[in-house]
Formats: sequence, structure tokens, C-alpha cells
Amino acid sequence: MTTQTQQLRERLAELEDLRLAAGLLNWDQHTMMPPKGGEQRAETLATLEKISHDRFVAAETGRLLDGAAAEQERTGAAADSDDALLVRLVRRRWEKSRRVPTELAADIARAASLGQDAWAVARRERDWEAFVPYLERNLELARRYVACFENFDAPYDALLDDYEPELESAEVARLFGELKDGLVPLIAAVRELDSDRECVFGSFPIEAQRRLVDEVLQRMGFDRAGWRLDETVHPFASGLGRGDVRITTRWDESYLPAGLYGAMHECGHGLYEAGIAPELQRSPLGHPESLGMHESQSRLWENMVGRGRAFCGVLAPRITELFGREVEAEELFRAVNRVVPSFIRVEADEVTYGLHIVLRFELEQLLIEDRLPVRELPDAWNARMHDYLGLEVTDPADGVLQDVHWSAALIGYFPTYALGNMIAGQLWHQVQSEIPDLELQIAAGELGQLRDWLGEKVHRHGSRFRTRELLARVVSGPLEVGPFLRYLETKLSGVYGVAL
Amino acid sequence: MTTQTQQLRERLAELEDLRLAAGLLNWDQHTMMPPKGGEQRAETLATLEKISHDRFVAAETGRLLDGAAAEQERTGAAADSDDALLVRLVRRRWEKSRRVPTELAADIARAASLGQDAWAVARRERDWEAFVPYLERNLELARRYVACFENFDAPYDALLDDYEPELESAEVARLFGELKDGLVPLIAAVRELDSDRECVFGSFPIEAQRRLVDEVLQRMGFDRAGWRLDETVHPFASGLGRGDVRITTRWDESYLPAGLYGAMHECGHGLYEAGIAPELQRSPLGHPESLGMHESQSRLWENMVGRGRAFCGVLAPRITELFGREVEAEELFRAVNRVVPSFIRVEADEVTYGLHIVLRFELEQLLIEDRLPVRELPDAWNARMHDYLGLEVTDPADGVLQDVHWSAALIGYFPTYALGNMIAGQLWHQVQSEIPDLELQIAAGELGQLRDWLGEKVHRHGSRFRTRELLARVVSGPLEVGPFLRYLETKLSGVYGVAL
Repeated sequence: MTTQTQQLRERLAELEDLRLAAGLLNWDQHTMMPPKGGEQRAETLATLEKISHDRFVAAETGRLLDGAAAEQERTGAAADSDDALLVRLVRRRWEKSRRVPTELAADIARAASLGQDAWAVARRERDWEAFVPYLERNLELARRYVACFENFDAPYDALLDDYEPELESAEVARLFGELKDGLVPLIAAVRELDSDRECVFGSFPIEAQRRLVDEVLQRMGFDRAGWRLDETVHPFASGLGRGDVRITTRWDESYLPAGLYGAMHECGHGLYEAGIAPELQRSPLGHPESLGMHESQSRLWENMVGRGRAFCGVLAPRITELFGREVEAEELFRAVNRVVPSFIRVEADEVTYGLHIVLRFELEQLLIEDRLPVRELPDAWNARMHDYLGLEVTDPADGVLQDVHWSAALIGYFPTYALGNMIAGQLWHQVQSEIPDLELQIAAGELGQLRDWLGEKVHRHGSRFRTRELLARVVSGPLEVGPFLRYLETKLSGVYGVAL
Repeated sequence: MTTQTQQLRERLAELEDLRLAAGLLNWDQHTMMPPKGGEQRAETLATLEKISHDRFVAAETGRLLDGAAAEQERTGAAADSDDALLVRLVRRRWEKSRRVPTELAADIARAASLGQDAWAVARRERDWEAFVPYLERNLELARRYVACFENFDAPYDALLDDYEPELESAEVARLFGELKDGLVPLIAAVRELDSDRECVFGSFPIEAQRRLVDEVLQRMGFDRAGWRLDETVHPFASGLGRGDVRITTRWDESYLPAGLYGAMHECGHGLYEAGIAPELQRSPLGHPESLGMHESQSRLWENMVGRGRAFCGVLAPRITELFGREVEAEELFRAVNRVVPSFIRVEADEVTYGLHIVLRFELEQLLIEDRLPVRELPDAWNARMHDYLGLEVTDPADGVLQDVHWSAALIGYFPTYALGNMIAGQLWHQVQSEIPDLELQIAAGELGQLRDWLGEKVHRHGSRFRTRELLARVVSGPLEVGPFLRYLETKLSGVYGVAL
């Protein structure tokens, strides 16, 4: 006789299979699908969402949750056993999802799929007007989604909670205020200082870039038998189940960091997916639900490691060899860390990056609360770019059209990027104290112990713990801005040769 | 208020979406998936099959079929209206599928997915023993599947019916007897005759092959915005819905026909998928169910067109230009049509090809009826290769391990390849009488009118008609071997310069 817990696990395993099927459909849409396939793809994704949602929110799921909980109480299962953590995680999701009508869930999936194709065309053709109806549709559906709930303080919180569970916008606003207060003086302090970036601009043949990236990813833990690397307009990572991790990057022949750091970033995400404990396969616990924690992994590998002084020492000689131009480690370190206010978030330096996120966080709240009409969004965007970064946006592709997220109905997602930076700062501080010779290892190109540390502390747990629980376990404290700001100060002091 | 017919259509549309999702998962498994992804992929496919099967065989489907039929009778819908044809098609499938337990359907899907990965490794390593358990598993499941039915004369018929509805093995045996009787003397007649094949062997850089194939596919109707061409071990075509047709081929640097004719073959399949009437989108009517009819399209384009004298006149000068070696049209025509008994079915000439199929048809019946143990299969295979083609198989990769089908649980599928040749013979005969200057058009590289004719007569109908109904409409007769044999005689007379 199978127990209630076993039945619950089996039911959820099938839902994970459906989630992974949708994951492949999404990956394919961005990497392989011919353009005319978009219409059917949207229907397929809508149907998968409809069926998944229906099965998940069914009373049977609730009955199994109750049954499993009672059973676990009877048998005295530990509160931190995987079965208990599963019930805790899934009950919370179930309570939230069951308030959402299936048709609405399917409509959101369909609109997100159609929106992404429309966005890709609009961005390429720099045509904001063409994108307006898709964004309006996604916002309308997001507002209907928000209206399904009563237990959130602010409309935005219902959305944010899907990407960073249990975090509220008031707390984000507080953290972002602290972040902004730290970043603005840093930017001002280095504004007038000079730092040459020439060594990363020029002509970098894609084939040689691929070789460099290939070597770097191998060091990080990319496994040819279980991973793929492809090209996309907007890089992303997909965990399609154990043994199938797919990352993408964007090659730019004239700017070396785009492909290299895009790949390191996504490989950081991929290591999280690949590092989840085997016993969590086909379980919701095997699917990391905090995107802030996820982003901490990508940012740590991209910035703390990849843009760090030690790894620049590994990269520089290979760049010299592969591209036939002399690059010194220090020169590379200064080039890839120079603070330059710029239009495109994904190309921003680590310091100004945070302001790109604050801008989006503010605009998203206005949009979802219907306090900013979509048609006025470009002006609002451009005004903030002027205020925060001193830049005048003239092309929507460099402004409001640059990110895929709003087209994909991912509203409330952006804050997790800045949260990821903060968490990465905390983890980086911690790992340096636990592995004293980490810098030496990285300088030797050895990244295995760092990967293992992250695997042990973070990756293997999947979604067992909430962000604050995991932070308490790993860094013995709450989510904090301080370590990230101190990390930036130290780095910039090195880059610019001044005390900050 | 929605009618019963509308409700039926909507229910079936969602099932089509699930079928297309599984189609993408399969395509990806053969083209993109990293090897370690196979285990999860099998689970995902099993879950999709489980859910699809459950939803399809549900009593609700039967209720809607009854309701739609009654409604159509009341409103006097024509028997050949799409709604009536839908009910007819789906009722038959429903009556068959509902006899199959959902768990069995899911087990078959899982085993098929695992089997394909195991086969790919076994074939590469020429390791028959490693493949035995997977084939035994697929046969065991196939026998359990067959045991679900009482209304078939022979066990094999239940399987064959999935690929060529309503055709029975007794009829296939009769047709294949006639085919064999026609092929054997043809092979004997040309055995001693000489024909040079040198011009298609040598060194053909893949990049130039891609350009040639690209040009040829463009002429056929390949649309970059709605199609993909990729590389696989075992070429196939996938219709993933309107606007998303994916074909594959296999490049061989030393043998030009492999990539070229593989691509033309699959493009023939692709044209069928792309040519289905838009109003049949997301309907089971939009999914061709006769694989014999499907194969007739691929074989017609590959052989009647691609290996025809007229098109060889188009190909030869481009081969000369692209590969820098002088090739005459007549020389190419003789080379790509030479009859040479060979080990590999997909590389066989048009004449010996039929015997490869007869061999498989006979062995499959023995296997499914448990009259041939899997362990004795290689000997049985090799003995027939000796008898039918005079060849001694020494490597299982050139023998029993060469095809993907049995690994993918596609037992009963092979006969449709030879049926496809027969039907192609009939269609070719017909189109020549309806388009008298067809050869001149092809010689000029103009393939549009042929494509339109096939589109009008065959493609647009999807699964509206059964094979015999469609043949009656298009060639005013039943399935026949004669036209194919006469086509071969004519061609071989030209190739060898003798009367046959």
C-alpha cells in the first residue's frame, strides 16, 4: 500500500514533468523555433499550463497534503525531513494557486508566449508602438491575477512573491533605498577618475571567443554530456531536469565581455540546477523557487569570480593567445570593472547595475497599480535614466524595449536581480572566510572547491529552505546590503587605485 | 451556447497541443538533448502520454462524439463535411485507444524513449547484446498492447493499424508477394550490367553540400521562416504545427547522395505537414494518420523527382560548380539509380529497397507472435539478407541494429515504407498524365506546379480520408503494385540502356 506521502510525491512528480516539458518549449522558442511557429507554440504552452494548473489546484492535491501531513505527524517525521519540507512548500503554493482560475493561468501563459515573439520583432525594429498592445495585455492579466488574492499588503507583492517567496515590496523598497544610498556616492567618487577599457573592445572572432568560453565553462563545471550552450538575443539558463542543463549567451564580435560574462553568468545558474541533490529529482523541492538565491549564483560566478583580479590573471594570457593581442591581467581587471553609466542593464557594470533595477522596480509598481499608463512608460523610463544615470535615451531598443521580461509576463521579477547581488555579496564574504586561500585557487584556475562549497551550502538543497532560512544557515544572518557594498568599495579601490 | 461539436473540437485541440509538445520533446531528444538528459526525458514523455491517453479515452470524449454525431444528424451535416469526418476519425481511434490501460500507454512511451537512447549507444558501439533487453521490453509491451484487442485477425494487425489504418497483414503479404515477384527478376536482369557510380563518391565538403541542399529545398518549398533543417543519425521529419516543420538529414563527406536525398526525402514529408489546410490546425484531421501516404510523398520527391533524369540535369551543373568536379547529368542519373544490393536500408536503391522491407515485415510478425526469440534475431536477419540480397552481414550495425524503429517501439511501421513506394508510383503515373509537361518543368528546376498538385490532391486533406478513399479520389483505383514496378522498369531501361 502506498502512503499518502508517496501518492503526493507521485502526483507532484508528474506536475514536474509537465513543468519541464513547458521549459523545453520555452527554451526552444528562444533558440530553435522558426518564427512562424509562434502561434501554435502559444497554444501548446497555454494547454500545458491549463492542464498543470487544473491538476495542481485540484481538491485531490489538498487532500493528499492533509493526508501526508497527518501521516507524518503520526510517524513523527522530522520538521526538516524532505517529506515535511515538501508538504510545507507545496501547501503554500497550492493555497496561492487555487485562487487563480485555470482559464486565467492559461491566458497568462498564452499571452506570455505571444508577447515574447512580438517583443523580439519590436526590439529588432525599434518599434515601441508595436509592443504596446502586448504589454497592455500582460498588465491587464497581471492585474486580474493580483485581484485573486486578499492576503498581500500591496498589489505588487502578489507578483513579487512568485519570484521571491515571502518577500514584500516594502522590505525591497527599504533594501533598495540602502543600496541606492550606497551606490550613488560610489558612482560619484569614481566619475572623474580614468580607467582604460580599450582592451575589451575591437575585433574578437566568434570562433576564438567560443574556445575561450569553452575553457572557462569547463573550469566552472560545464559537462558536455549533460549541458548545452546556445546563442540567444537575451541570454538565459534552463534546468530541464537532472542531466539536462541548457545555457545561452550572446556573441558580440566587437566586445569581448558580452559573450564571456554572459556565459559565466548563465553557467552560474546552470551549476545551481545541476547541483541539486539527486533525491530531489522530479520533486518541487528540486526546483529552486527563490530567484534572488538563483541570481546570487550567476552574479557570484560572473562578477566575484569572472571579473575578479585573480581570474583576470587566468583570462589575460588566454586572450593574448587566442586573439593575438597583448592584454595584461591588471589592464583586463580595470577594463571589465570600470564604472560607466550605460543604457543596457545586462551590459552594466556592477555598480550602476543596481540603479537599473531600482528604476524597473519603481516603474513596475506604478504600472501594476495603474498609476502609469503604458503609453507614458517610455517618458517615465527616460526621465529616470536621466535622473539616476545622467543618460538621454533616444532609441527604445536602448530603453524601454531592452528586456524580455515584461513581454513574457514576468512582472515582479526584476528586483530579484539586485537581491541576487546582495546575497552574492554575503556568500562571497562567507566563502572567503571558510576557504582562506580561495583567491590563490582562482588565480591558478582551480574553481572546484568554490563550486563544491556552493554545491554543499546552496545548490543541493533546491527549494528545501526559504531564502532567509538558507542565509541563516550559510551566513548566520538576514538578507543584508552591507557586504555587497563593501565588496564594491574594495574592488573599486583596486580598479581606480584610490581609497574609497 | 457552444455545440457538442465545438466542445469536441476544443477537447481534441488540447490533445493535439499535447501531441505537439511530445513531438518537440522527441525532436529535441534526437537533435539537441545532451545524453544525460535521457532519463528525465523518458519520464516527461511517459507523463505526457499518460495524461493524453487518460483525457482521450475518458467517457467524456465518447459522450461528445455521440452528442456531435446526433447534432450533425439533426442539422443535416454532409457526410464529407469536416465535422462529420472528424467524428468518424476520432470515434475509430477512441474505440481502439480506450481498450488500452493508461499505465500501459505510459510504459510504452517511457520504454520507447529509453530504448532510443540505448539503441544510439549500442549502434555506435556495435553492441547487439546491450540492446537486447530494450528490444525485449518493447516487444513485451507490444504484445500486451496487442492483447488489448479482440477485433484483429492477426496480432500484427493491431500494430500495423496504428500506422496504416484498416490495412491487414494478409493484404500486405499479398501486395509484398507481388512486389517481390516483380523486383527479383528486375534485380537479376541488371545484376551483370555495368554502371559507374564514381561521380557520387569522393570528397564533398559539408559546407558545399549544405549550399546544394539549401538550393534544392528552396525549390521544393522549404520556407526559412517556418522550417528547420538539422542533423541526426537517423533522419526524420516532424510537423510541430502550422509554421513549424522540422526536417533532418545526415551528412556524409564521402558520399554525396546521403545528405542530399535524405534532405529531399524528409522535405517531401515536410511539404505534407506544411500543406495541410489551415482550418485543420489543432484538429486530429490536421495530422496525417496514414504513414503509407506520408511516405509516398517523401519517396516521390526523393526518387521520382530527385533521382529522375530531368532533375539530375538541374543537379549536375551545380555539383560541378560547388565541388569543382565535372559531372554530366546522364552520369549522375546512372550513378544515383544503380541497383546494388547493400546492407543499409536507407541507403538502398529503389529496387532492392523493397526487399529490405519484406525482410523486416516477416521478422516483425515472427517476433510479435513469439515465434522468434530476440536472441535469435541476428541470425534470422542475416540469413534473409543472404537469401534476398546475397549479402553476408558481419557487423550488427550494418544489420539488425541499423534502424531506430524497434528501439522506439515502432513495431508494424516498416511496411508503410514499401506501401509508400507503391502509392508514389500511382501518384507519379497520375500526375504525369495531368501535367503533361511535368518533366520539362522539372528540367527547368520548376517544382511549384508539382507541389501544388500534391498539395491540392493530398496534403491539404490531412487525415480527412482513408488511404483507399484518397487513392480512389486521386487515381481512381485501389492500392496497386503495378505502377511502381512499371516506373522502375522504365527507369532501369534508361539507366542501363537496355529494354526490360
